[in-house]
Parts: sequence; structure tokens; C-alpha cells
Amino acid sequence: MAVQVTENTPTVALGPAAALSCRECGQRFPLGPIFACQECFGPLEVAYDLPSGDPESLRKQIEAGPDNIWRYAPLLPVPADVADKPNLNPGFTKLVKADRLAAELGVTGGLYVKDDSGNPTHSFKDRVVAIAVEAARAFGFTTLSCSSTGNLAGAVGAAARRAGFQSCVFIPHDLEAGKVVMAAVYGGDLVGIEGNYDDVNRFCSELIGDPLGEGWGFVNVNLRPYYGEGSKTLAYEICEQLGWRLPDQIVIPIASGSQLTKIDKGLKELIALGLVEDKPYKIFGAQAEGCSPVSTAFKAGHDVVRPQKPKTIAKSLAIGNPADGPYVLDIARRTGGAVDDVDDEQVVDAIKLLARTEGIFAETAGGVTVGVTKKLIEQGVLDPSLTTVVLNTGDGLKTLDAVAPTSGPTATIRPDLDAFRAAGLAR
Amino acid sequence: MAVQVTENTPTVALGPAAALSCRECGQRFPLGPIFACQECFGPLEVAYDLPSGDPESLRKQIEAGPDNIWRYAPLLPVPADVADKPNLNPGFTKLVKADRLAAELGVTGGLYVKDDSGNPTHSFKDRVVAIAVEAARAFGFTTLSCSSTGNLAGAVGAAARRAGFQSCVFIPHDLEAGKVVMAAVYGGDLVGIEGNYDDVNRFCSELIGDPLGEGWGFVNVNLRPYYGEGSKTLAYEICEQLGWRLPDQIVIPIASGSQLTKIDKGLKELIALGLVEDKPYKIFGAQAEGCSPVSTAFKAGHDVVRPQKPKTIAKSLAIGNPADGPYVLDIARRTGGAVDDVDDEQVVDAIKLLARTEGIFAETAGGVTVGVTKKLIEQGVLDPSLTTVVLNTGDGLKTLDAVAPTSGPTATIRPDLDAFRAAGLAR
Repeated sequence: MAVQVTENTPTVALGPAAALSCRECGQRFPLGPIFACQECFGPLEVAYDLPSGDPESLRKQIEAGPDNIWRYAPLLPVPADVADKPNLNPGFTKLVKADRLAAELGVTGGLYVKDDSGNPTHSFKDRVVAIAVEAARAFGFTTLSCSSTGNLAGAVGAAARRAGFQSCVFIPHDLEAGKVVMAAVYGGDLVGIEGNYDDVNRFCSELIGDPLGEGWGFVNVNLRPYYGEGSKTLAYEICEQLGWRLPDQIVIPIASGSQLTKIDKGLKELIALGLVEDKPYKIFGAQAEGCSPVSTAFKAGHDVVRPQKPKTIAKSLAIGNPADGPYVLDIARRTGGAVDDVDDEQVVDAIKLLARTEGIFAETAGGVTVGVTKKLIEQGVLDPSLTTVVLNTGDGLKTLDAVAPTSGPTATIRPDLDAFRAAGLAR
Repeated sequence: MAVQVTENTPTVALGPAAALSCRECGQRFPLGPIFACQECFGPLEVAYDLPSGDPESLRKQIEAGPDNIWRYAPLLPVPADVADKPNLNPGFTKLVKADRLAAELGVTGGLYVKDDSGNPTHSFKDRVVAIAVEAARAFGFTTLSCSSTGNLAGAVGAAARRAGFQSCVFIPHDLEAGKVVMAAVYGGDLVGIEGNYDDVNRFCSELIGDPLGEGWGFVNVNLRPYYGEGSKTLAYEICEQLGWRLPDQIVIPIASGSQLTKIDKGLKELIALGLVEDKPYKIFGAQAEGCSPVSTAFKAGHDVVRPQKPKTIAKSLAIGNPADGPYVLDIARRTGGAVDDVDDEQVVDAIKLLARTEGIFAETAGGVTVGVTKKLIEQGVLDPSLTTVVLNTGDGLKTLDAVAPTSGPTATIRPDLDAFRAAGLAR
């Protein structure tokens, strides 16, 4: 499936990105639209020549940059003038000091919610897609594409239009109406595939290998090595927003596991660059019980992840065979963290807990991380005396159904004071 | 209905806010939770002692402030240490250079979209509520409230929880399910009123005058003078984001008309403070044809606004008897602007135009402003050679129904290349 890289592959200018490197065998390849090692079929990731100068001047350069992910352009596979190109410019979302949530959970060391619902299409997907867009531009693609269960389709549709690409995205034909609208409104082609998400994925892989797919950049397939790097910006922002400090503990949702591994990569880069103090941090992974292959493996002490058939309301995390599962296990164990899961009822409770303490309405994935945080504190696994960051990766407006059955009016009354008094709502 | 202000009314520290002043007769009152002049029943607004120093140092102070509306604290009715209090911290949303939209509309002088869907609950309401929260804190209120057709209820519910207030908000009992969920999920009391929005409003006015309402701050009633000032921040941000320049033309949606009048107030303050050059600007108002009382009065050359019974998909603009209508007419005429309207079909077309050119999915109110902008350019009323800013005040996720009937898959196919080829989607 991998595109052949030859000596004639054009050199592209993607800032500090030097090559693609195999995560398994270390073999390096020139930067190109490939995603699997031609030696061992391991996943490729971006290798960098990172800046080697004085940390203080790099820090100043970053702080003087734009209020979006391009402030970190010196650490990303993007051209130096990326901020001048049309792009949705996601990132630099709020890191909310969650004092009321902390009080409820008994956290005394400082609790923060990194709220990615503030991104342009209201999920962290805008970060990864923004980087894929710049890779697509560098490789001369004219059409942006993806396989998606909904959120990514919207993010790609929106980003493609801003950046001046055509787009054609693929979804299962029986998606919820709201997600279809979001994916279609940007006006690119939207194709319903008669089948489930696996069928959509298989079809996309076929298309990439066929002349029909020439000129197409699939953000989560042939552009995946670049796309994934977008998640590093979550690590950068968290540390910068903490005053260039590493958090002690960080709780991250797991779908494919890519986000968690890239956040770890980002934290390690900041240490290597001297932008933050080198000190231990613990990474915790959060899954929904109905799709908990990594959590199950973690608790069983396994190194391999056994696929599951997902059944959970946290649909954006419902990947039963997570590609980066083994790497997640390694990171959680190496840093002294953990992976755990909560059931759907706990997910709903956690969405409401976050909403009623901090006024943040999270999508189900945010309920998973908050719910797992609560569970791990109760179990004594997370240390409440340490600085802790919890990720909310999406917006509650996209998963209204999860809370709708239990979120209604306190009372319905006639418009008069007697009726109000009778309802017992006076303070 | 107005609370009596006596010599014993406590003095509150709301930064540069000096008094309340009647918009009609100029009578001044001490800062307090009142909203109508006790002499002539005219609307009250905040009068300031604005900073008198060197513009350059004020500009630097603002630029060094937080990435939200509190960077403008020296110009708002809030305490100087407002940024340290728990609040949703809205604002400093993106000003998007809309080159692809400009090309479609033939604008050559620079077209920008001020995209307020990036606020915490995804509408400009977060700005006005944030200011009302600080007023409520200053006046010692313990419960935040409002009458709402949905969006405001969510914004108040969220802000109240973050700031540590109780909340009780009132909505018509037959609201769409999605809006009810948004209003309820934050956990404050949500009361459905058997009646329409007018009945809800009447009931809230009764409650304010009754001992039952003691300690209650209604953001859009007894805190309205403070609440309204939040819209000034749109003017400040637009100018700062343009490099401390006034736009030549600005297109603003009209519901009550408050937002438009406060943006004008904000622009005039920036000129008075020397933060921008003193030069003419034109303000344009946008309504939906199905609720166009101000547009109708403007076109007829009237000074008074005749109420209408709203019937439009742009529900967040559906105020048939806009309180600030006459002031809007005055501003549009004084600045050389205009007020116009578009029908529901044009609203939907404009939402899609913005989505397919810039990747911004606006709520119906955003469709109204983009649609009216297009119409005014075609009519030669808006000058395409001038710098123009168009407001998007909310998020398309909240008004999915408007575009759902015409936003679906391009094709639905079997997962194979032959089916794809047959669908005619190959590039």
C-alpha cells in the first residue's frame, strides 16, 4: 500500500522535519506521503532536526508567535511561513483552572482542564488536520480526504475549504443526521459507504493504491505521520500555559492511542530543548468500558492489546483495535501512570460533573477522561496533591443524546408567582 | 419596577464605571441593579471615567493582558482584578481574513469575519453574561437568572457554575429539545413557562419586583446596563486585531439592537482615547425578512420602529419589538450605513456560502449578516473597495435544522472502486 519513495521523490520544505522514521526498526525514509515502513511495515513518524539554540530565546520566539498552534512552528513538520497560509489556525485553547471540580474530587495540587472544544470545529481534530493540510500542500495534493465516523469528516471539510483544497470524505452510510449535516455543510463531496467504519477504512486503503486516488491526501492514512504530530501541540500548550512547567499528572482519552503517544513525544521534546525542567511526569489513559482494549491489557499486565467490538456512547473513542495500543501501555508503565475505564453511566455523570462545577459542556470523550480521573483518585492511583491536567477533546453539542434523557427542566409552571412559589424554587 | 436607589446604596468598585446615565434625558444614578430612568423611564447605560493617559501606554497595557475580554478591563464596568476571579473568560475570538469569501463577493478592500462561535458556549452571549456576572458579584447577588429562548439560558447556566453562583433560568416550555439540554446540563434550575417568550419576560419582571426575587440578578433585566457593555468588546477586538485600525464598514445582526449600539459606543471610545485614528466608519444592520422591524423602518425613512410578529428561521434574532431599534436607525443614518434584510432561503444560502469558502459553520444569525452583506454589495450600498468586517455571532451546531434538509451525502455507494467510479466522483 505504501507509495514507493525513490531518489526522484522531491524534497519538501517542512521546517524542522528531517525524515520519516520507523517506530519499530528505526529505518529512515525521505519525507513523503507514506505511512508504513518498507522494511518491517511498522508505523512511520516524523524525525526532526530540532532547534539547538538557547532555550530562553526559543521560548521568547514562541511567546511572540500567533495565538494558535503555529507559535510552535519551529517544532512541527510545517514550513516556517505556515502562519501566512490559509488554514483554520486551531489551538491555544483554554487551560482552565478547575477549582470547583478540584474541590469535588479532593484535588489539592491544582487541577486543570485543557478544553479543546474551543477549536474551530470544536474538537482536537482541528489540530491534526491543520498539520495534514500543510503536508498535503507540500506534496502537491489537490484533494483532501479521510475515513471518518463523523467528527473528522467535518474537520477535514472545513479545513479543506479554508485552505483552498477540494475534498471528498467517506463515512458509514447510516451515521446520525447531525454528523452528516456537519460533514456536508462545507460543500465538499461526502460519500456514504454501505457498510461500517471498517468497510470505509478498507475502501479508502484500496483507493489510495489505485490511480483513481492520485492527488488525494488522506489525512489519517497516507498523511498520518504528519497528522499525528498535531497532537504534540497539546503538550506544548499545556506546559506553556502552566508557565513553562510540566504537569505532574495528565489524563488523556484513548481511541487509536495516537494522541497519548504524541503528547508524550511533545513533553520529551520540551525537556530535550530545555524549555521545561527535566522532571518525572505520569501519563494516564482513559477508555470507556464498552471499548477498553488498552485498559484491559494494562490491568492484565499484557504487552499486546486484544481487539474488542465497541459498544459505548463514547463513539469518538470507539476504536476496538487501537493501532498505538502497545505504545500507550509502554508509556503508562514507563511513566508510572495507568490506564483505566468507566462505564456509560459514569461517563454521563462525569459530563454533568464537569458542567455543573466548571460550566464546561464536554462530549462523551471528555466524560470518559473526567470519569476515569475521579475513579483513579478514589482508588489512590492518581495523587490528589500533585498538579493534574485532564483533557476535554470535544464539545457536548456534538453528543447531546448522551445527556438528553437526564437533562430537562426542573419544573414547568404557569407564568405567575403563586405557581413559582408552589414549585419550591424560591431561594 | 426599578429598584430604588438611595443615599445608602453601597458604592461598588466596578473599575472605570462612574454612574448609570439615562440614554434619553441624561439623568445620572449611582451604580446599582437598575435599568430604567426614574425620571423618564429611558434605558440606563454605564457612564465612565475613562483612562486619560498616553494612548501608547494604554495600548501596551491592553496587549500585555490576557487573551480574553479582560484585556479591556480598563474600559469595562468590572473591577481591576477581574481576571483573577472565576469566570468563563470569553472573547478574543478569531478575526478571520476571508479571502475566498471576498473573491466570491467581489470585495477587494479586505473582508474579515469576526467569528464569535469560538466563545465558551459558542455565541457572543458569553461576552455580555461575563460582564453581568461581575456586576452580580459586586451587588451581592447569589442567584443568576434570565429570560431566554435558549442560547442565553445556556450561557447563563455555564457562567453561573464557573463563577460559583446559583442559577435559575426561565424559558418557554415548548423549546427545541437540544436547547433545553444545553440549558439544563449545567445543573442550575431550569423552569419552563407555559407561554411564549413574552410571557416569560413578563413573569421575570414580576419576579424582580417581588420579595421572592430578592438576591436575584437577571442578566438581561436588572443587570442589563452592565450586560450590554459586553458587546463593546467586539469593537475593541476588531480594531486591535486589525492592528489598531477602524474598519471602514461593519455589518452587525440586529435582535434587540443592543449589540449594534454598543459596538458603535466602543468604536467611539477607542477614537476618544486616541487608540485608533479618528476617521469615518459605516455601520450596517442585518435582519431576517421574517422579523425586520428595523430594516422596514430604515427603508421607509421612519424614526420609530413598528413591532412585528416574528416568523423566521433566525430565531436568535426574532425580536419583533427591538428596544434599541430607534438608536440603531440613528447610528446607521449618522454613519452613512444602512439596514437591510434577507429571506430564509437567502439565510441558508449564506450559511453555506460562508461554510464552503471559509470553513466557518455559522448559526442562522451569521447567515443573516453574510446574506445582507452580499445583498448590499450587489446593490452598490456596501463599497467593495473598503475594509469590511462581518460578524458571526453564533455556531451552526445550534441551528442544524436550518441546513439539514439541503446538506446530505453527495452519493451513497458500495465499498468498491467500481461503484466509486460509477458515481462520477473521481477527480
